[in-house]
Amino acid sequence: MAKYEALDEVFVALADSTRRAVIRRLGEGPASVSELARPFAITLPSFLKHVRVLESSGLVRTAKSGRVRMCTLDRDRLALVDGWLAEQRHAWEGRTDRLAAFVTEPKEPS
Amino acid sequence: MAKYEALDEVFVALADSTRRAVIRRLGEGPASVSELARPFAITLPSFLKHVRVLESSGLVRTAKSGRVRMCTLDRDRLALVDGWLAEQRHAWEGRTDRLAAFVTEPKEPS
Repeated sequence: MAKYEALDEVFVALADSTRRAVIRRLGEGPASVSELARPFAITLPSFLKHVRVLESSGLVRTAKSGRVRMCTLDRDRLALVDGWLAEQRHAWEGRTDRLAAFVTEPKEPS
Repeated sequence: MAKYEALDEVFVALADSTRRAVIRRLGEGPASVSELARPFAITLPSFLKHVRVLESSGLVRTAKSGRVRMCTLDRDRLALVDGWLAEQRHAWEGRTDRLAAFVTEPKEPS
């Protein structure tokens, strides 16, 4: 998956408070789908849709262990967001540096 | 707008490479809609839809100046994403600290 396409899917996955809460929970360590679903007042099929969105974004990996499906957070995938934000800041700082250089540049004597 | 609702809209707005490119450009300073549209091979009405998504997320503010609509980036709104990522890291680090304390804790003599 190309980096920009991956970012699209990561941002879509993050655009929902249930999915963000799942990511927060998985930050504490792997959990089964039923453990993850427990705090939410939605049906299991609805919850599974959220898990599938997280999975297809690459933020969450799931694996069957007997009758239980375990979920793990992929922090490297979440780090794409950090990377994107850092790129923006880098662009702004470049601009601020240029402005500062312009403002503090010694003026030619008139 | 509640903070979590705001985050939903911010992440939706970021889930598109055209909109992310607009944010990048606006990081360099304000620009008119037509300036912003120039690099994209899409019609102006399609581009305006992207501007509206950015505007409703609060990431971009627009103001009419004569016949020109000027756009400005609201970095505080983008900082919501930084804040959310920092919260996740904080949760992970708490977990790592607890693990480290567990691993390095002196053992009772048997």
